[in-house]
Amino acid sequence: MAVNLEPPRAEDLLTIAGVRLGVARAGVRKPNRKDLLVVALDEGSRVAGVFTRNRFRAAPVLVCQEHLEGDLPIRALVVNTGVANAGTGQPGLANARAVCAAVAKLAGIEPAQVLPMSTGVIMEPLPVDRIERGLPDCIGDLAADHWTSAAEAIMTTDTVPKAVSRQTVIDGRTVTVSGIAKGAGMIQPNMATMLGLIATDARVGADALQDLTRQVAEHSFNAITVDGDTSTNDTLLVVATGQAGNVEIVGEGTAEFSKLCGTILEVAQLLAQAIVRDGEGATKFIAITVDEGASRAECLKVAKAIAHSPLVKTAFFASDPNLGRILAAVGNAGIADLDPARVGLSLGDVTVVQEGGRAAGYTEADGQRAMKPAEIAVRVTLDRGVESATVWTCDFSYDYVKINADYRS
Amino acid sequence: MAVNLEPPRAEDLLTIAGVRLGVARAGVRKPNRKDLLVVALDEGSRVAGVFTRNRFRAAPVLVCQEHLEGDLPIRALVVNTGVANAGTGQPGLANARAVCAAVAKLAGIEPAQVLPMSTGVIMEPLPVDRIERGLPDCIGDLAADHWTSAAEAIMTTDTVPKAVSRQTVIDGRTVTVSGIAKGAGMIQPNMATMLGLIATDARVGADALQDLTRQVAEHSFNAITVDGDTSTNDTLLVVATGQAGNVEIVGEGTAEFSKLCGTILEVAQLLAQAIVRDGEGATKFIAITVDEGASRAECLKVAKAIAHSPLVKTAFFASDPNLGRILAAVGNAGIADLDPARVGLSLGDVTVVQEGGRAAGYTEADGQRAMKPAEIAVRVTLDRGVESATVWTCDFSYDYVKINADYRS
Repeated sequence: MAVNLEPPRAEDLLTIAGVRLGVARAGVRKPNRKDLLVVALDEGSRVAGVFTRNRFRAAPVLVCQEHLEGDLPIRALVVNTGVANAGTGQPGLANARAVCAAVAKLAGIEPAQVLPMSTGVIMEPLPVDRIERGLPDCIGDLAADHWTSAAEAIMTTDTVPKAVSRQTVIDGRTVTVSGIAKGAGMIQPNMATMLGLIATDARVGADALQDLTRQVAEHSFNAITVDGDTSTNDTLLVVATGQAGNVEIVGEGTAEFSKLCGTILEVAQLLAQAIVRDGEGATKFIAITVDEGASRAECLKVAKAIAHSPLVKTAFFASDPNLGRILAAVGNAGIADLDPARVGLSLGDVTVVQEGGRAAGYTEADGQRAMKPAEIAVRVTLDRGVESATVWTCDFSYDYVKINADYRS
Repeated sequence: MAVNLEPPRAEDLLTIAGVRLGVARAGVRKPNRKDLLVVALDEGSRVAGVFTRNRFRAAPVLVCQEHLEGDLPIRALVVNTGVANAGTGQPGLANARAVCAAVAKLAGIEPAQVLPMSTGVIMEPLPVDRIERGLPDCIGDLAADHWTSAAEAIMTTDTVPKAVSRQTVIDGRTVTVSGIAKGAGMIQPNMATMLGLIATDARVGADALQDLTRQVAEHSFNAITVDGDTSTNDTLLVVATGQAGNVEIVGEGTAEFSKLCGTILEVAQLLAQAIVRDGEGATKFIAITVDEGASRAECLKVAKAIAHSPLVKTAFFASDPNLGRILAAVGNAGIADLDPARVGLSLGDVTVVQEGGRAAGYTEADGQRAMKPAEIAVRVTLDRGVESATVWTCDFSYDYVKINADYRS
């Protein structure tokens, strides 16, 4: 029931020179489903990451960060679904390290060259033995064109695999970007993705890659929310294999950096929006833009207050123009000196609120028309500055409750 | 479907000397239901109030605050349901004043001696004409023993009227406290109640009454949450008619102040908890206590992060011991220096988490047993101080979505 979201077609996904992907059915939590992914990176690849700000960072997140900060180049990623290996204390850390060691042994590299990711149920022990038994299948399956299969292997409650490719030309060379991501609940900045992996063949310096990753995350995965819950495992990794042959991109402020950043951002936004379109129980895709704020931060606060309000979300589900709920959410955003009398609100082309009250020409019929479409653009104007922010979210349906009440059964 | 909540029995509600209540069916939004309440206060009464912190304060809230700050003693309250008169700009203010003027005319007092309250749909114009036509019925109905009827008249999506009385002895005199409140959605501190009215015959100084009202609100209506949305109209008024004959209570730090505060707090907590028990779609009543924090503020933050998590709330609905979701919520509470390795969690008598990980003796069967009851005590320990806070909330069910998707239809 995803909102305007088709599965990616294999022919639309482009290979990235230096990246091979292999999956397996390891039975991590349930039998007979793809649940294990290994991504092999050629020598010369660089990896940057951004991670959940939840204080309960999962064991694989901690190990990921440790290995990224180490001296050895990253050569492999390993992703399992089913069990998040979060809230598992010291044994969880040991398990994450054991998985890295097993990958390293098969690949002939060091454990510190492997980045682990996990997604699934929290507080359950990671079944390392099953993962170890599945890894040889992953290695045997490694191929450059397995992006679709990889997108399937990282799904949990997702109903549609999420994968996107784009190309651009940098420095006279064609540069390709491909990415996969998974949702679909416990989704809020920061990070929103639960898991995202974007790879490019561009050649990028280590600092530039980290800067780029942060900027991309801010305007994509950190700008979506399904339910306001930030996962313990959220991870976005950006890989640059450097095989496109361009002169190395070393910093911000160059046309090459901007171009690559723009292309990766396009992929990241499409993946992030796909997570929202496939949000648990989603029937509507809602873009909330807050304009004329004094800072981007306050615009984000207002947009998220709207996006997180269960009352607003259920009204969208019902296509009920009970739009005062949006005003109430704006008032709850925690902006102490907000002047309600300057606030405006529109949905699509319908002006609902002007100067803090019902707009003169607004009718209930207009509101009903504006609430009907599967995709709705909400725009709030604060009339106190020039900054703005956009957040993407979905509605709140019976199915959200159903999915989350039944998730483990 | 309220959780362990019976309608109040008329014989359990005690009259307050100096307070009379009268209701009417004014057809504010729907015909043939009690939707208008007038409360008449004898001369010598004092009133204190606390109000929503939503920036979009409704017109009646603004007028209430203005009249409370004025020089004239308050002699009447007027409450309508159906239309909140919020997000209605200047016309809304004029309408709230018109209602006060109509009450004043009938009662032979000044408009500034009337406090208005409204609850219902936001952004709709208040039908002043219907309210004016209903007011004579309210005046004709005024009686000291109409507390039950008054509790019914202020209901919106509430399924059970909420009213409580208690007595204590102060200064050798019996002092009585009676209160009514309504929920049941858009419920979060501050204020949570949407509307609450508590009256006592105690004699209390104006400053002491305001102090007492703030303290009571903090530990009752501001400690509950149904859905994290703070209404535009939330109002708690505490009336003291002074007819009990005690020596006037003039400040904190006296036994008399503490005793009255304790009795009013008991009434306020029972009313606030009744709002949660009757929360939209509630099937479970959950008390979340966070202990061993560095400050009450951080304990509240953690408790609310748990109470607001849709994932936690749906797990309670399903009686699914997916308790890692509680840990994730703790980690999301925004306490930057929280050490996850010191966090503990128990449900009822079941220890779930010790030192940030699954407790040694914990089994899934224990978790299932702990999640089953209709009332659950969640206890989180932070191991970083001596402060604590308790928040009351309910679960998140299909019916929450249903009620809020259908509210206006």
